[in-house]
Amino acid sequence: MTSSSSSGTSAPARDDAVLAHIAQHGEEFLAALSEWLRIPSVSAQPEHAGDVRASAEWLCGTLSATGFPVVEVWETAGGGLPAVYAEWPSGEEGAPTVLVYGHHDVQPAALADGWESDPFEPRRADGRLYARGAADDKGQVFFHTLGVRAHLAATGRTAPAVNLKLLVEGEEESGSPNFGELIRRHADRLAADLVIISDTGMWAEDTPTVCTGMRGLADCQIDLYGPDQDIHSGSFGGAVPNPATEAARLAAALHDEHRRVAIPGFYDGVVELTERERELFAELPFDESAWLRTAKSRGTLGEEGFSTLERIWARPTAEVNGIWGGYTGPGGKTIVPAEAHLKLSFRLVAGQDVEKVREAVATWVAERLPDGIRHEIVFPGATRPCLTPLDHPALRAVVRSMERAFQQPVRFTREGGSGPAADLQDVLGAPVLFLGISVPSDGWHSVNEKVELDLLVKGAETAAYLWSDLAAGGDAADAG
Amino acid sequence: MTSSSSSGTSAPARDDAVLAHIAQHGEEFLAALSEWLRIPSVSAQPEHAGDVRASAEWLCGTLSATGFPVVEVWETAGGGLPAVYAEWPSGEEGAPTVLVYGHHDVQPAALADGWESDPFEPRRADGRLYARGAADDKGQVFFHTLGVRAHLAATGRTAPAVNLKLLVEGEEESGSPNFGELIRRHADRLAADLVIISDTGMWAEDTPTVCTGMRGLADCQIDLYGPDQDIHSGSFGGAVPNPATEAARLAAALHDEHRRVAIPGFYDGVVELTERERELFAELPFDESAWLRTAKSRGTLGEEGFSTLERIWARPTAEVNGIWGGYTGPGGKTIVPAEAHLKLSFRLVAGQDVEKVREAVATWVAERLPDGIRHEIVFPGATRPCLTPLDHPALRAVVRSMERAFQQPVRFTREGGSGPAADLQDVLGAPVLFLGISVPSDGWHSVNEKVELDLLVKGAETAAYLWSDLAAGGDAADAG
Repeated sequence: MTSSSSSGTSAPARDDAVLAHIAQHGEEFLAALSEWLRIPSVSAQPEHAGDVRASAEWLCGTLSATGFPVVEVWETAGGGLPAVYAEWPSGEEGAPTVLVYGHHDVQPAALADGWESDPFEPRRADGRLYARGAADDKGQVFFHTLGVRAHLAATGRTAPAVNLKLLVEGEEESGSPNFGELIRRHADRLAADLVIISDTGMWAEDTPTVCTGMRGLADCQIDLYGPDQDIHSGSFGGAVPNPATEAARLAAALHDEHRRVAIPGFYDGVVELTERERELFAELPFDESAWLRTAKSRGTLGEEGFSTLERIWARPTAEVNGIWGGYTGPGGKTIVPAEAHLKLSFRLVAGQDVEKVREAVATWVAERLPDGIRHEIVFPGATRPCLTPLDHPALRAVVRSMERAFQQPVRFTREGGSGPAADLQDVLGAPVLFLGISVPSDGWHSVNEKVELDLLVKGAETAAYLWSDLAAGGDAADAG
Repeated sequence: MTSSSSSGTSAPARDDAVLAHIAQHGEEFLAALSEWLRIPSVSAQPEHAGDVRASAEWLCGTLSATGFPVVEVWETAGGGLPAVYAEWPSGEEGAPTVLVYGHHDVQPAALADGWESDPFEPRRADGRLYARGAADDKGQVFFHTLGVRAHLAATGRTAPAVNLKLLVEGEEESGSPNFGELIRRHADRLAADLVIISDTGMWAEDTPTVCTGMRGLADCQIDLYGPDQDIHSGSFGGAVPNPATEAARLAAALHDEHRRVAIPGFYDGVVELTERERELFAELPFDESAWLRTAKSRGTLGEEGFSTLERIWARPTAEVNGIWGGYTGPGGKTIVPAEAHLKLSFRLVAGQDVEKVREAVATWVAERLPDGIRHEIVFPGATRPCLTPLDHPALRAVVRSMERAFQQPVRFTREGGSGPAADLQDVLGAPVLFLGISVPSDGWHSVNEKVELDLLVKGAETAAYLWSDLAAGGDAADAG
């Protein structure tokens, strides 16, 4: 069976019992989700802190009602906003443990931003549910409640086939400032064989996909100091080093003429794309003009020899996020500025070591600067990359379950951004997979956010199959 | 006679009559100058506009008393601060016409800035006169009043041997915003065979020098536009052009690996230093460590194959005066910024054409930017370079007069900055020379500004000889 083939799928037929449960409880599920969506749990706005807390309490109640025997509100350090943790042991010896991650806080939203209806009064229309958080991420957390009940109904079990754990963060839309500390503190409780992130999307409504990895991130600020104060460019310019010029020379030297990152050692260890992965990427119905519109850009530019998708998903990059130095006001000022600054970030892929990248950058900077320029470099934080090989048993289980629900071949994507997924991978030492049913038109962080109701239900159906499949032992089920 | 030789001078003896006049009127001259220095004619501070006006009126009165038959206050366009114009015709057929330029406005100054005494209460100590404007530029304007009277006393004339014109600006320390308009409007009145700028300095107390040129200046702002808004560097970075990177690549590409300006055509027409000029520069007692302290810098860097003095005086340069784009606040922000900006300035030397340099820069920018980056470039203003050849008859007259006053060989410098001198050269079509007696320790634009009294008097003495020498016909006098 080649579940990733583009020509069809030999997935088993959908499970009537799963479908019957979902059909019977679908309205009730949507009503409950709508209740949750009415709570404006905007983590970035202090005036909504109480709503984030109410959202956590509401979720606890609903997870208890779903059947989770352990449901807890977890406070974050430093007076942050609470996460919800739930646990439903399988009761069976040797059952795998799966941790599902999502978040219950949402982006800010207001009717005045251009929404067609109140973002916190869910509206059903044309097979969609419109509300802030419908797709990012309450809808995708919530399909798991329907999924696990459908799983139980179809299997006749009273507890899921896997030890199911759920961690639903309350500060994700604020940059997860306390997430690392939270999971390190609760690492024993969170221990799992597998992490499933349900906070992502698929390629398109008609193209179900599984994301197999996220890029990592290392960023830095470089401060360059030249003269003790701005000096006259007529009296001194052209004879002393100019920190703005040197900042520019560093930023310019980040890439060679093939737009490849030119820092020695940067690519050390990079897990290269396999031919199969490149073929699979190339088979995706990618419309570059449409993508450019999303990027609000007018041209593509990147590492030679790679497609746009390969560049954003599978290749490490270096980006100038900010540069400043000298006079920036109206008119001119003929100075050699005293200082200049650079903010750089590096997206990392599997195989790259954050520490080694930092060292490579620091060495490269120090070696390139001329005498007379003093510099400081700070690396504030980093997120490691994560990547699941296409033949990983758990990944195959996710693909099988999704293909069974969609009755369509499932393709593979990656995520160019970086996120707390990698923290989970690091702290728990477990592989991280992505099960998401959102689509690009869902309007994350934008106006008129919505979720496609049929995809929401497909998410529940996929989860219903997945717990059985994983419990059956991964590849063993592949042949069945 | 080799007046520029470092081994000595065969200048004629000082003129006793000139010396006697100066000795007799020196105290009176200093008392008058002190009176002028008490007027805080700070052009940059609107609350001192009345003082600038009072300074102009005071100067008019004093110039009339000196003997100038024509003395006028010239208003600048747009309600600016007034200049003073004075004229003293020789009365002799065929006498050359000389226009002396200076300014009567001063830089801001306050005791609280660290002055040892009130900057507007002149203080004499150790052979110096301390006050704001003592050297820049009231003292150097004012030695001409003593100089022309000494010239008359020594020659027995009732009018100077040259048609003497004086233009004393009131907005120089504010960037001369109306100067170009003023001199174009009065071009007929200002017509001269020669312009003498008395707003510069010499190498050092014991090293009299004549400045032979100033660099020109062309500056520009380049605005680069990429995405319509800042976009996510994880989703799009590495696949679309980044305007901050492109701004940096432009700034970095300004110079090649030899720190030579790399814009094609930039050096077209450059008047190269002669071997003689290089020798003369090299003979100057230049202390690079001391110069670096003045530059508040820790290293020299510039065009390969040239000394520091050559780089700042005689070579064209490109400088990044400002660069900015993207996120510049605390922490990180992983974006591809929507825009980035560059402020560049180019110091130009004789032979370079401002328009051609602008075209070269504009073409170079347009050709280097990738698809997907839109740009705008604006050239707000420009000042042409000026340079007088070492063998120019009027320059030789200045050198002779100065060597006679100093009884020392006079060496040559240039000025790396740019100034209204070039405007005078352009509008009047006359060569521009520099006669200044200030020294680097005079503290222009700084605290405790002062002028060396013996040099101030040497300025007057030089002027007294110069008018006779010029009237005698330049090189004719060289042999005499």
